[in-house]
Amino acid sequence: MAFTESEVIALLAQVFATSNPNLEVGIGDDAAVIRTSNRTVITTDMAVEGVHFRQQWSSAFEIGRKITAANLADVFSMGAKPTFLVVAVSLTGNEDLEWIKNLATGIAFEANLVGAAVVGGDLTKGAAVTIAITALGEVTDPILRSGAKVGDQIYLSNLPGWSRAGLAILVKGLPIETDAAKRAVAAFRAPTLNYAYAVDLANATALSDVSDSLMTQSEQMAAASNVKFDLDFNLFKAAADFEELRTLSEELNVSVADLIFGGGEDHVFLATGEDLPGLLIGNVSAGNGLTVLGNEKAPDTWRHFD
Amino acid sequence: MAFTESEVIALLAQVFATSNPNLEVGIGDDAAVIRTSNRTVITTDMAVEGVHFRQQWSSAFEIGRKITAANLADVFSMGAKPTFLVVAVSLTGNEDLEWIKNLATGIAFEANLVGAAVVGGDLTKGAAVTIAITALGEVTDPILRSGAKVGDQIYLSNLPGWSRAGLAILVKGLPIETDAAKRAVAAFRAPTLNYAYAVDLANATALSDVSDSLMTQSEQMAAASNVKFDLDFNLFKAAADFEELRTLSEELNVSVADLIFGGGEDHVFLATGEDLPGLLIGNVSAGNGLTVLGNEKAPDTWRHFD
Repeated sequence: MAFTESEVIALLAQVFATSNPNLEVGIGDDAAVIRTSNRTVITTDMAVEGVHFRQQWSSAFEIGRKITAANLADVFSMGAKPTFLVVAVSLTGNEDLEWIKNLATGIAFEANLVGAAVVGGDLTKGAAVTIAITALGEVTDPILRSGAKVGDQIYLSNLPGWSRAGLAILVKGLPIETDAAKRAVAAFRAPTLNYAYAVDLANATALSDVSDSLMTQSEQMAAASNVKFDLDFNLFKAAADFEELRTLSEELNVSVADLIFGGGEDHVFLATGEDLPGLLIGNVSAGNGLTVLGNEKAPDTWRHFD
Repeated sequence: MAFTESEVIALLAQVFATSNPNLEVGIGDDAAVIRTSNRTVITTDMAVEGVHFRQQWSSAFEIGRKITAANLADVFSMGAKPTFLVVAVSLTGNEDLEWIKNLATGIAFEANLVGAAVVGGDLTKGAAVTIAITALGEVTDPILRSGAKVGDQIYLSNLPGWSRAGLAILVKGLPIETDAAKRAVAAFRAPTLNYAYAVDLANATALSDVSDSLMTQSEQMAAASNVKFDLDFNLFKAAADFEELRTLSEELNVSVADLIFGGGEDHVFLATGEDLPGLLIGNVSAGNGLTVLGNEKAPDTWRHFD
C-alpha cells in the first residue's frame, strides 16, 4: 500500500470525528468506551467484494452506505435506536487513500442519518475487500420476529424489488436511462432506507427488515411466531410505485412478483399488528407457512450474484 | 457448499448456547438483546486466511481461539471484563460442517475462559476465510494508554516472543520436536493469554496488550502519555523462560531481542504503575520515544507473514 497504517487511522479518526456525549474514549486506544443503556441490541454484518458489491458497479461511498444501512436496518428491526458502530475492513492494497476515505465517508454518512457514530475499527490486508460492521442500539421494549398473532395485519414500509431490479440491470449491462432504471440502480448501489417507519412502530407485534427476500423473511417470521402468513399479491398494487416497477420488470424480462418477493437488499421493514402505517400486504392466520394469493407463479429464489 | 445456511445457523446456535442471564434474545432474530452496564467498551478485530492464519498450520479450533483471544485481550487492556461477542465469517465453500463447528468451538472455548458469550453473527461467502469478531466488555474505571506518568515502572504480564518464534518455525518448515519448539508453535497457533494478570491491575496508570509488537505498543503508549519509555533489556533476563527462548532463537538463527521486541501475537499485557505484578522491564521518564538499554542492535521490524 502506498500509505502507512497510521496515516489511514489518522484519516479515519477525522472522518469519524463525533461530539457524541456518550462516547468517552474513541479511536486510538485498545477499545472504545461508550455509555450504554440498560438494554442494548447488537448485530453484525459482513460484505465481501464480488459477492455483495463490485467496485466497477458502486463507488466506495455507495459501498460504505450500503453495508452500514444493512446493519442499521437490523437495529431498527428490533424496535431499537442505533447508537454506535465499529468497522473492520480488509483491503487488497490496490485501494488508494481517496477510495478508503470515500468508503469511510459513506459509512459515516449513513450512520449520521440516524444519529449513530463510528467509534472503532480494524484495518488489515486480504485478497478481497471485506467489510464487517457491528452496530449497537438502545432499546426499551424490543420487537421480535416471534410476536405475530392470528388476526394481525401484515405491512411493509415500502415496495421491495427496486434493488433487485437494479442488480439485474447491472448484470445484464442494460442502459441506465429511464427514471425507473436510474432509481433501481441507485437502490442497488445504496438503498435509501425508511428508518422513520420503524421508529413509528411501537405497536407492532413483530418486526424484521427484509434482508434476504420478502419470501424468506415472511417464512422466518411466520415460523418464529408459530402462525401462517397469508399475503395477497393484489394488495401490492396499491403501492404508488407498483406500476413503475412492473413496467421496468417487463423491460428486464422478469416477473414483477419475482422482484418483489425475491428482492432483499432494499431492507424494507416487514411488520405485523393492527392499523399500522405502510403498505398492507396480508393477514396472519392460524397454521404455519406462507401463502400468496393472486400470484401467478411461485417466485424464483434470488441469491447473491456469485 | 454441501450444507444449507439454516443447518449452519442451527449448529452455531448449539455451539454458542449459553445460560447467561444478561442475554435476553440470542441468535435467530435481527439482532441480539443484552443487558449492559452503564459504561461499555467495544472493540473489533479481523483475521484473514493467508495473512493472520493458514489452515495448513492451524486447526479450525486454534484459529477460532486465536482471533477470539485477540479481541478479549483488547477488552482486558481497557481494565474491562468481556461480556458478549458477535462473529462475522466469510467461508470459501471448501470448508465442511465439521471445520465450521470446530472454528465455532474454538471461539466458544476462548470466550468461556473469561465468562463471555457469543450472541450473534453473520455468515457469508468470500474468496478467503475471513473472521471478524466484535467484543463488548463492562468497565467502571477504564485504564487508557495515555495514563503513564514520569517515575512509573513498566511491566509485562509475560515474556513475549514465543508466538513469533513459532511462526518462524512454521515458515522455515523446521521440526517441532523440542519442548521449546512445541511451546512456540502452540503459542503461534493459539496463544494462552494471561487474562488474570489484567484483572489484577486496578492500580495501573496505563495498560495495553501487545498486538503488533512490544516496540510498537511501547512507542504508542509513550506517545499517548507524552512520556519516554526506558526499557532495559537486561531486565528481561529475569523471566523464567528467557534462557529457553534464547536457546530457541539461536536454533532459529534470529536474535532473541528481535523475537521479544518484534513479536506481537502473544498478546502479553504492557502496563505502567508502581509495584505492579509481572516482569519489570523499565521505567517511565520525561521526554518522548523509546530507548532500550543493553540491546545490541535495533530490532528488525516484524510484520504479518504476507
